Amino acid sequence: MAMMRAAIFVEPGRIVLDDKRIPDVGALEALVRITTTTICGTDVHILKGEYPVAKGLTIGHEPVGVIEKLGSAVAGYQEGQRVIVGAITPSGTSNACLCGCLSQDGAGTKHGFKAMGGWRFGNTIDGCQAEYVLVPDANANLTPVPDDLIDEQVLMCPDIMTTGFAGAESGQVRIGDTVAVFAQGPIGLCATAGAKLSGATTIITVDGIAQRLEISRQVGADFTINFRETEPVAEIMRLTDGRGVDVAIEALGTQQTFENALRVLRPGGTLSSLGVYSSDLRIPLGAFSAGLGDIKIVTSLCPGGKERLRRMMAVIQSGRVDLKPLVTHRMKLEQIEAAYELFANQRDGVLKIAITP
Amino acid sequence: MAMMRAAIFVEPGRIVLDDKRIPDVGALEALVRITTTTICGTDVHILKGEYPVAKGLTIGHEPVGVIEKLGSAVAGYQEGQRVIVGAITPSGTSNACLCGCLSQDGAGTKHGFKAMGGWRFGNTIDGCQAEYVLVPDANANLTPVPDDLIDEQVLMCPDIMTTGFAGAESGQVRIGDTVAVFAQGPIGLCATAGAKLSGATTIITVDGIAQRLEISRQVGADFTINFRETEPVAEIMRLTDGRGVDVAIEALGTQQTFENALRVLRPGGTLSSLGVYSSDLRIPLGAFSAGLGDIKIVTSLCPGGKERLRRMMAVIQSGRVDLKPLVTHRMKLEQIEAAYELFANQRDGVLKIAITP
Amino acid sequence: MAMMRAAIFVEPGRIVLDDKRIPDVGALEALVRITTTTICGTDVHILKGEYPVAKGLTIGHEPVGVIEKLGSAVAGYQEGQRVIVGAITPSGTSNACLCGCLSQDGAGTKHGFKAMGGWRFGNTIDGCQAEYVLVPDANANLTPVPDDLIDEQVLMCPDIMTTGFAGAESGQVRIGDTVAVFAQGPIGLCATAGAKLSGATTIITVDGIAQRLEISRQVGADFTINFRETEPVAEIMRLTDGRGVDVAIEALGTQQTFENALRVLRPGGTLSSLGVYSSDLRIPLGAFSAGLGDIKIVTSLCPGGKERLRRMMAVIQSGRVDLKPLVTHRMKLEQIEAAYELFANQRDGVLKIAITP
Amino acid sequence: MAMMRAAIFVEPGRIVLDDKRIPDVGALEALVRITTTTICGTDVHILKGEYPVAKGLTIGHEPVGVIEKLGSAVAGYQEGQRVIVGAITPSGTSNACLCGCLSQDGAGTKHGFKAMGGWRFGNTIDGCQAEYVLVPDANANLTPVPDDLIDEQVLMCPDIMTTGFAGAESGQVRIGDTVAVFAQGPIGLCATAGAKLSGATTIITVDGIAQRLEISRQVGADFTINFRETEPVAEIMRLTDGRGVDVAIEALGTQQTFENALRVLRPGGTLSSLGVYSSDLRIPLGAFSAGLGDIKIVTSLCPGGKERLRRMMAVIQSGRVDLKPLVTHRMKLEQIEAAYELFANQRDGVLKIAITP
Repeated sequence: MAMMRAAIFVEPGRIVLDDKRIPDVGALEALVRITTTTICGTDVHILKGEYPVAKGLTIGHEPVGVIEKLGSAVAGYQEGQRVIVGAITPSGTSNACLCGCLSQDGAGTKHGFKAMGGWRFGNTIDGCQAEYVLVPDANANLTPVPDDLIDEQVLMCPDIMTTGFAGAESGQVRIGDTVAVFAQGPIGLCATAGAKLSGATTIITVDGIAQRLEISRQVGADFTINFRETEPVAEIMRLTDGRGVDVAIEALGTQQTFENALRVLRPGGTLSSLGVYSSDLRIPLGAFSAGLGDIKIVTSLCPGGKERLRRMMAVIQSGRVDLKPLVTHRMKLEQIEAAYELFANQRDGVLKIAITP
Repeated sequence: MAMMRAAIFVEPGRIVLDDKRIPDVGALEALVRITTTTICGTDVHILKGEYPVAKGLTIGHEPVGVIEKLGSAVAGYQEGQRVIVGAITPSGTSNACLCGCLSQDGAGTKHGFKAMGGWRFGNTIDGCQAEYVLVPDANANLTPVPDDLIDEQVLMCPDIMTTGFAGAESGQVRIGDTVAVFAQGPIGLCATAGAKLSGATTIITVDGIAQRLEISRQVGADFTINFRETEPVAEIMRLTDGRGVDVAIEALGTQQTFENALRVLRPGGTLSSLGVYSSDLRIPLGAFSAGLGDIKIVTSLCPGGKERLRRMMAVIQSGRVDLKPLVTHRMKLEQIEAAYELFANQRDGVLKIAITP
Repeated sequence: MAMMRAAIFVEPGRIVLDDKRIPDVGALEALVRITTTTICGTDVHILKGEYPVAKGLTIGHEPVGVIEKLGSAVAGYQEGQRVIVGAITPSGTSNACLCGCLSQDGAGTKHGFKAMGGWRFGNTIDGCQAEYVLVPDANANLTPVPDDLIDEQVLMCPDIMTTGFAGAESGQVRIGDTVAVFAQGPIGLCATAGAKLSGATTIITVDGIAQRLEISRQVGADFTINFRETEPVAEIMRLTDGRGVDVAIEALGTQQTFENALRVLRPGGTLSSLGVYSSDLRIPLGAFSAGLGDIKIVTSLCPGGKERLRRMMAVIQSGRVDLKPLVTHRMKLEQIEAAYELFANQRDGVLKIAITP
Repeated sequence: MAMMRAAIFVEPGRIVLDDKRIPDVGALEALVRITTTTICGTDVHILKGEYPVAKGLTIGHEPVGVIEKLGSAVAGYQEGQRVIVGAITPSGTSNACLCGCLSQDGAGTKHGFKAMGGWRFGNTIDGCQAEYVLVPDANANLTPVPDDLIDEQVLMCPDIMTTGFAGAESGQVRIGDTVAVFAQGPIGLCATAGAKLSGATTIITVDGIAQRLEISRQVGADFTINFRETEPVAEIMRLTDGRGVDVAIEALGTQQTFENALRVLRPGGTLSSLGVYSSDLRIPLGAFSAGLGDIKIVTSLCPGGKERLRRMMAVIQSGRVDLKPLVTHRMKLEQIEAAYELFANQRDGVLKIAITP
């Protein structure tokens, strides 16, 4: 029985590296040998016990690797091929998927939430902070990596980039729009890049860390606001001559950022929310125009599936967007516990850590 | 100086019929002699002082009448022509209008709200519970009434019908959808009719008044729930086999209906809100799937303009929808104070009162 | 080796009933025992040799039946369950499907056409005018039939209804639209029903057979034009006061109907084409406004997949649309050659023939 | 009676500079003193008599200037303010405009075309190759120019840029798309820039002039094809690994470019047509997949109105797109006859000529 190393959730506060059996491969599955992966903010929620998962589960949902073994009903791939797989792994064949709602495949009740969508890796099945990961519904999810892209270039595609871009896309950003993006962590930075790629001509970003605002300018921001120095709502209204923004993207998951995003919207504008919230939200009556403002609030869960990931890699290949500045650290899988410690405490200017087994 | 009778806001609790000067007609305006009008729930908010307007303002925003005089720059109409005008009167020429956001023309700050959109009649300018009303931006708003339709048939078009239908349209109801409509007052009933007209195949309506639920069946409901007898969220989940609804339309403006609408949504579903709220709203974390449910919340303010109203009357003419059951009472303008008393207290099964000068 | 009866293409002019081996069931497939099927106009093109298929192929793409055997990787169904399957059988897992283009799955080059989309039954694999049919990608395509619907009620769902409705949907018919539908064969009749279900308030249908125009009124037409008596373009412009229609649906596949559909469009209107053409088309310069009319021409191939078919059956269940008048004849599979003869020659007022093994 | 100089159509082959009366200003109009204008390919069609206009008409539809006098019902502007006005001048108040179809305002029959949309300058009313131009529906059309932009920077906004961008927008180009643009004249170059701004990651441009292909690379092309050296359909299929393009933009108005655009589409793709055609078009059966390819053909007429033009200038201001390379020549209004001669014969690498009175 072949064994591998994997980062396993033991109990709140403890994710440890341990041995685990390399799983068997079902007809619709594929086994992928991980070459590079990373840690996500959501993983920190799991570590802290804020988001509950089963004890013994392998964590991680951002895999880059090589196909080790294909299930008997998986076609169109070769073993040895380099691939990425999205954090969300739609089956393609459910009613939700066939209706175009790829991220909400397998939706159901979990932990009191009505739906956790199609997020399975490191949530309901073993994830990819390990030497191997078993990919479900492989026909819809294995995405070959072009030869001219290295692992680190595509490492953001499975989650950060596809989620951030969805902020701009679900907000229906279009040519000539003014867009505000609240929070410039990895997802917020990708939202900024996505807004620029969608034709926004004035992009205003808000964060409290100067280094992040600096990167934000590199990926698309025209104006940056450090909320520790300047009150962002008034400043955005000033920058827009009192008009407000067409689209406000929330990329953190707090009442403050949600509410600010609402307050800066023009009448008829769209709040595009990406954050994972941890408590009830309040919609202030005035900011909501009492329901009379033709305002839209849209939420997006990380889009997945091999076509989506193909498109993300096409963006990287085109050189339109360069996400390399987001990889600030490199560590080995054996150091994963230290990596969590660094990342959870946002030390040393960390944005994303490339982890290699 | 010619005078007319008009229903005037004096102070909270008092709307009285009084004499007022018939206004002069500017270049872009038209004077319309009112033949039929009605009272809206929003007017009751004004009466109660819950929604502030200037003292001395004529109330009312649902006009049917005859063109008395055209401004010098208004073309394509004849004096004597029968017309309706929407509750919302877009200029057509503002940036908001040219951007497709017709209801938010003239948006600005009023009473602490960021925008009250293009609603002017009985809000920022004199309304139509009077013998005459001055129509602004007449070229974009005067809508000729087909000869084969009587006043009462088109009386719902300026507000109730266009708003209710917008609930289904903004929710993007499509063929085969399951839709829940919360509250079956006049706007909720029109939302039900609009959902049917948009192809919804399972429509579930919720109200606490049996008579309204009965009319709701006539205009499109497949299932009705009296919330005084049955808990609506559980019942809707039961009726949909636990799947939830594609679109939930809120047509009242309370935390309870807003929250219930959110709770019955399927992952990826849309809450289409029509209500005018009077306090902050709370979004429960679970019902919102912590932001991960691909849920959309959209709000719609009464669409106006002559093309929209032409389409509403085309619906009536086609016989697809019959809103006559909504006109439950008929009174004279001289009785407007009594009419407010009846309507505000929802006595005698009142839905809408046709008022004729 | 178990055998079955099947309608097989032998050569142009000859489709014969013959014995064929009941196929083995692969991991992703399901074997369905046919209880009711029918003949489509496309099958007549095959019979006449106008659309080429391989000799020996079983014809037919509109199956109602019972699951006889499930492949090892097919889940969520039971053998013995009554199902329908769409004429188009998307895998759900291809890039085209994951991009929302379900009907163009497996697109490639065939017979000089750039793509024949996802149409496989009776085109590239054996079809369902037989005792059994092998369903590919069964997870995405087997659609359980509600108990309260009989076979004949759902017989139109796999092709005629979903295609006809797509004519209205791709044309983006909305509340208050004026729609013209050219040709009222089975697909045109379903397009008429779909336009009504989408909110069109003036529907004008055109055909040369009085009986079809009569049924057209039953399913939604407000005005009918018999082109043998009245020139349709002039008549439609007259009925619309010279305005033209918002959406024109072409449901035959000829230059004449295509061109007429273009000529009656209002500026900014949409020609929604459903027909299968057999020669190059000509776009007259004037009807196309030299390219300056903001005109759209959209084509739709029969949408498939289990979610689409579930929605079609929801329409039938709701009673919103009654397609029973389309089943004009009933015959046994043993009579299939006579059925082709009747249907190909459009004798005896035939619309659709229910065929039962 | 004040006079001005204006370029006037005399007869096919002759546009001459002559004296003309400066017009009076109606209530809804504004008189603009031209500071910079240019010649469009459509003007050459007029010169050659291929597109008929009235004798004595002033030609030109791309104005940059200063408000000289405002009509009595025009508000929100000051005389002396610098403005641009779109080639298309929607009223904002017609049914077409209120329906969102701004470019087809005032649509009717002209010269056998069903509609020439809202194009009035130099078509149905006097244009702007003159010292002054009278702007109709000024409230909807006068667009203030930001102080930091010079005339030549915004000279492309009224027509070339808004039209070219519409090619990408109507084609619904989105992140990760592959787009081909046929012809790289001024409009095609703007279509290329618009495709990039919309998120296309592979842009392939086709032209026969090396200099244009070179500029095309500067504004967004990833690959260029000189059709004099390489057959473009085969080359595009090769570059896309046989997949075809998501969107093909036609920017010339010939059978050849239209047909090539159709041939390179993937199944489900969109042909976005910008060209002004001068003869009937032929749709080859195979390239159209016989109507079964889920293909869309959309046409766009130059979007206008002050909000659209505001957005175009926002793009220029943001520095996202630089159209200065398109201004290849500068001439005085007095030299307009020579300018036509140069432009009509595409001499000296001319793309656009900035003309100043």
